[in-house]
Amino acid sequence: MPASPIRKLVPFAEAAKKRGIKVYHLNIGQPDIETPKMVLDAVRNSDFKVLEYSHSAGNESYRKKLVSYYASVGIEVTQNQIIITTGGSEAIQFGFLACLDAGDEVIIPEPFYANYNGFAVAAGVKVIPITSNIENGFALPPIADFEAKINAKTKAIVICNPNNPTGYLYSKEEMEQLKAIILKYNLYLFSDEAYREFCYEGKQISALHLTGVDDNVVIMDTISKRYSACGGRIGAFVCKNAALMESVMKFAQARLSPPSFAQIAGEAAIDLPADYFDTTKAEYKQRRDLIVKRLNAMEGVFCPNPGGAFYAMAKLPIDDSDVFCQWLLESFENNGETVMLAPASGFYGTEGLGKQEVRLAYVLNINDINKAMDCLEQALKQYPGKTN
Amino acid sequence: MPASPIRKLVPFAEAAKKRGIKVYHLNIGQPDIETPKMVLDAVRNSDFKVLEYSHSAGNESYRKKLVSYYASVGIEVTQNQIIITTGGSEAIQFGFLACLDAGDEVIIPEPFYANYNGFAVAAGVKVIPITSNIENGFALPPIADFEAKINAKTKAIVICNPNNPTGYLYSKEEMEQLKAIILKYNLYLFSDEAYREFCYEGKQISALHLTGVDDNVVIMDTISKRYSACGGRIGAFVCKNAALMESVMKFAQARLSPPSFAQIAGEAAIDLPADYFDTTKAEYKQRRDLIVKRLNAMEGVFCPNPGGAFYAMAKLPIDDSDVFCQWLLESFENNGETVMLAPASGFYGTEGLGKQEVRLAYVLNINDINKAMDCLEQALKQYPGKTN
Repeated sequence: MPASPIRKLVPFAEAAKKRGIKVYHLNIGQPDIETPKMVLDAVRNSDFKVLEYSHSAGNESYRKKLVSYYASVGIEVTQNQIIITTGGSEAIQFGFLACLDAGDEVIIPEPFYANYNGFAVAAGVKVIPITSNIENGFALPPIADFEAKINAKTKAIVICNPNNPTGYLYSKEEMEQLKAIILKYNLYLFSDEAYREFCYEGKQISALHLTGVDDNVVIMDTISKRYSACGGRIGAFVCKNAALMESVMKFAQARLSPPSFAQIAGEAAIDLPADYFDTTKAEYKQRRDLIVKRLNAMEGVFCPNPGGAFYAMAKLPIDDSDVFCQWLLESFENNGETVMLAPASGFYGTEGLGKQEVRLAYVLNINDINKAMDCLEQALKQYPGKTN
Repeated sequence: MPASPIRKLVPFAEAAKKRGIKVYHLNIGQPDIETPKMVLDAVRNSDFKVLEYSHSAGNESYRKKLVSYYASVGIEVTQNQIIITTGGSEAIQFGFLACLDAGDEVIIPEPFYANYNGFAVAAGVKVIPITSNIENGFALPPIADFEAKINAKTKAIVICNPNNPTGYLYSKEEMEQLKAIILKYNLYLFSDEAYREFCYEGKQISALHLTGVDDNVVIMDTISKRYSACGGRIGAFVCKNAALMESVMKFAQARLSPPSFAQIAGEAAIDLPADYFDTTKAEYKQRRDLIVKRLNAMEGVFCPNPGGAFYAMAKLPIDDSDVFCQWLLESFENNGETVMLAPASGFYGTEGLGKQEVRLAYVLNINDINKAMDCLEQALKQYPGKTN
């Protein structure tokens, strides 16, 4: 089991704080956006007397409401095609456990959300990475690259759309290419759509917008980022394949039920006013525009413009981003401040890739992002391992 | 992946209710006891603005409080020896994933909590059952039976104490026997202590009361039953083996964090007045005394007196408890009422065992238990598959 690449620097951040350094956290996808008050209030005003197990698939009332939520984003599903999970994390676990046997392979374009690897290890499944490149903004790799890796053990392709860590938003054409290949080889398409609402260049094409692949497509979903409700640990496994849902239900029953409090929060969130996402999205877009502009203005830095989510990947003029990110916390300060970034090496399955890249989560306000960029700009001037 | 033996009868119960039949649920460990108001109020009065991820090991403030809780039951641990989990379920999963490789074996006295099997399947681990018997109240099987099954692949023994489904409370002597065998063969002892406070004949000997086995013992814990807070999904993995804790932390980090709302509830529960368990325990004891008396008064029924938890196992004069429990829901009624029980076959790993046994969870009030026993008494007179 690999250690979390994002969390391994935490002790260095804690030490920096103990030395009195202010640390700007661009390293983790924990938004500073307030959870909508009506969502928290739904929990605070709840009046049950026994904190009971819910249905293993989640409360029926919540699943019914989710049907209307999905309809609002053009996804037609019934309540029986939704299983509420403990965070998006558990939806991913369920997918690996129910669809793949030990020794099977799953193809994932890299860089990818590092915990896919952890869940694969836990399920005894092998991740086969296919490299996407910063030069074209991490577009879907050529389908020929996928076909070259597909063999009898290949059971699924995982995408995250819009993407964590790259922010890339897959186009209609790319989604149709994926559809063709999963049909050709009869694979599952696991689509992690945690960031669905946060698209700044066009709209998301959901895997469940694809037609004729109902038995092959699974959406892994979560309320974590959508409503800034990461601590709730509520997600969803959404799929039209009845046999697969029956299999997933067995795993759901084994762990009894998803958390009850946060199901109340998730259900309330569906009644948020229609402009909720407009406001949040406008805030994130402003941050994205700023961080991309600041990064590309630094000498030797390249940051493609991400189409969605709240992450940017940047290529820096440095020898090794793991060393650099640790150095930022251990040996650098700019007027008593520094910045914490996620080294990209942890997002690549292929050893040695991403050594010049970092992921930046724009989860801080404009003011803090500017200060964090001031730190980075100064740091790149002082870092001993600079390459240009 | 096996279907949950407890939940497979649910559609028949739903159908009975649709026909207007009242169903007494003695089939599942969902207590009717109210969650303490101060525990729910702690969540309702919380005033944070962002529902954030917690630390992957759980909130530090909660873990600090748990240190004092464990001290109060004679278990000396530090906050770093506690990882908060998503229910006791996840603590069991973590144990299997971190301590055993695919193909390894874990020994469990049967009958056992059916979901151990589900988690074992998910981890690619094989459960080796050792049969305990209703005749001696499901005491620990002879150590020779364990030794006969131990081989190079054996990595752990799992016990549940007090036991679900049998209610058996392991004695000091039995715990010392287990200690000797885990030391002799260098095995882990996973001790599920979900029902620690509910002992009616003497006190629980925790696996962490054993001395000299700090590296081998893991406690799987939960607030679900202790505070009637099943829906919170908060448990704990408690262990003094630092290397193992480091390994478990990787799994904890992969799933990011346990639920935030219910951690607040769990933390508040530690401040409950000292007599909280006295009241709850007295209630359960009264129910146990009643249900055991009613069962043993029925012709051909044998129910050993359980020392703890809130379950009783009974041997009935019937051909097949799966058929009988379904018949209770499908074809029987006593003045418009019936009772739902858990067939014991699902708690045995050995095919064919438990066919005359059922588990009864005494999670209903005295009045309802009496009515449920009236149903069972009548049913045993009418059931076509009666054996005496």
